[in-house]
Amino acid sequence: MNLARSAETQTLVIGLAGGTGSGKTTVSEAVRRAAGPERVLILPQDAYYRAQSELPFAVRERTNYDEPSAFDTPLLIEQLDALLRGEAVARPVYDFARHDRAATTVHVTPRPVIVVEGILVLHDPALRERFTLRVFVDAPPDERFIRRLERDVRERGRSAQSVIEQYRRSVKPMHDLFVEPTKAHADLIIPEGGNNRVALEVLSAFVASFTERRSERATERRAGQREGAA
Amino acid sequence: MNLARSAETQTLVIGLAGGTGSGKTTVSEAVRRAAGPERVLILPQDAYYRAQSELPFAVRERTNYDEPSAFDTPLLIEQLDALLRGEAVARPVYDFARHDRAATTVHVTPRPVIVVEGILVLHDPALRERFTLRVFVDAPPDERFIRRLERDVRERGRSAQSVIEQYRRSVKPMHDLFVEPTKAHADLIIPEGGNNRVALEVLSAFVASFTERRSERATERRAGQREGAA
Repeated sequence: MNLARSAETQTLVIGLAGGTGSGKTTVSEAVRRAAGPERVLILPQDAYYRAQSELPFAVRERTNYDEPSAFDTPLLIEQLDALLRGEAVARPVYDFARHDRAATTVHVTPRPVIVVEGILVLHDPALRERFTLRVFVDAPPDERFIRRLERDVRERGRSAQSVIEQYRRSVKPMHDLFVEPTKAHADLIIPEGGNNRVALEVLSAFVASFTERRSERATERRAGQREGAA
Repeated sequence: MNLARSAETQTLVIGLAGGTGSGKTTVSEAVRRAAGPERVLILPQDAYYRAQSELPFAVRERTNYDEPSAFDTPLLIEQLDALLRGEAVARPVYDFARHDRAATTVHVTPRPVIVVEGILVLHDPALRERFTLRVFVDAPPDERFIRRLERDVRERGRSAQSVIEQYRRSVKPMHDLFVEPTKAHADLIIPEGGNNRVALEVLSAFVASFTERRSERATERRAGQREGAA
């Protein structure tokens, strides 16, 4: 409900939540295309997992990545606020092999559209209130599991059995406990995220209209400044 | 999923479903403002309740208005198709006091944006496939009941007790049986319909972008015709 704030900071901040395999990435990509890639910054919540260098590897290996306390949300908020003030930030990188924050960072610069994307971005009230638009991408649990299975086997070289075990032990209970309830905070629910072309068109029209209005305002401001200077 | 068809007929057809008291009217009004009132036709599904003059009043009085068979869906489809071909139609009027279709009709003309609005507009597959965009307006059941109670007492002079009885006997069971499952056919779910200003902005941006593109195409066509004539 932060349309006023968005006009003030000249930045559209979209919070994009949804369970594993719901199609968040496809929605992010649609936003990026709608606004023009150079105008969009995607902040993945999973870059902000807590640093835990003080713990031994055997403990880090058992990290529960599906609960809110796994994230360094204060850092995410701090960096989002800096970006909204027009400052660049050194975005952390998470090393899933070492189960710890990486030594490297990514230099990211402010953009007119920021997408904060991740399973639990609608969980924390302080983070949530910074979003202009809160989107929850929704897909049936069986379809979400299948997509996660395919992705983890293909891209992460994991066995189907290990994916199933992790899903039953942690992903699913945490989803039901923490992710699903955040749907109540959404302004918009997109069913079948990735395959829902019509919803992507609707969201894209909103993003495009924001970036167009922003360009018009910038043109008007420059015209005003030239008049002031003359 | 009918963006192609919508480009062809030059008409944006929005199917707007949701339970009683979900805020469908507020969403319709937002669409009307976004496109400009003269460009939008709202077709309320409850104008298309079946004629039942052959039944005695005592039977008509017990009409179950919350189930799919209460609607004359073939007529709604026939009139929608006529409008999409650019023809005007005589839209029926329903007389809830007599529990029958009224003798009068309303003359409605084709418009660039048509909103088909009602509790069960996403139920019938043949109707559903005519929609460019399928929206389900969602609100918690207690809130929906409260709004219906307030509306029926204020606008229809009914007692709280009679509203409660009808709700328990028919409205709620039919909602759970027929209305709620149609959410699965939605392209977009708008939680808390009427109070969700951000979702209304998003939907409005889509409608406005459609009507603007349509005007541009019309201008191009006219320019093309002038060139052809010259």
